[in-house]
Amino acid sequence: MSNIVEIFGVAVRQLREARGWSQEQLSEQANLNRSYVGEIERGRAIASIVTAEKLAHALELQVPTLFDHCGQIQNRRWVTGIKLTAIAC
Amino acid sequence: MSNIVEIFGVAVRQLREARGWSQEQLSEQANLNRSYVGEIERGRAIASIVTAEKLAHALELQVPTLFDHCGQIQNRRWVTGIKLTAIAC
Repeated sequence: MSNIVEIFGVAVRQLREARGWSQEQLSEQANLNRSYVGEIERGRAIASIVTAEKLAHALELQVPTLFDHCGQIQNRRWVTGIKLTAIAC
Repeated sequence: MSNIVEIFGVAVRQLREARGWSQEQLSEQANLNRSYVGEIERGRAIASIVTAEKLAHALELQVPTLFDHCGQIQNRRWVTGIKLTAIAC
């Protein structure tokens, strides 16, 4: 599975939890199936751009902001990876 | 078909044409089927977030920047719509 699929799932979960919402609440807001939202959050389902837009709007975000959040997660992982590599050297 | 699907297609076509690339060139860079890229540009196929990432990177953009471009297209359409409504009133 592509890296963006996993990162996107982490981003959706983080943003949902930051709002104190359950998967049920998010899926209702986004008009999506709850188990599908769960699969997306676990990086097991590949969201379409339509689903990404539904999730972004349910989270009261613009689509680019949702993907900015994905970028931030990825950047933090790189930095952590570099630090761990430095410690290991 | 959702509005984002059409807008996404317009954005990809505009960004490709701004680089002077053919659909063949873009599809090769993105490692996607040319006819699939054509369908996306015409708003006939719904891209996944993986495809969106492939297209963004082929266009040497970050994913949020590609969706920012979609937002700009949508905003211009709203403004044009408001102006046309004002003229009609």
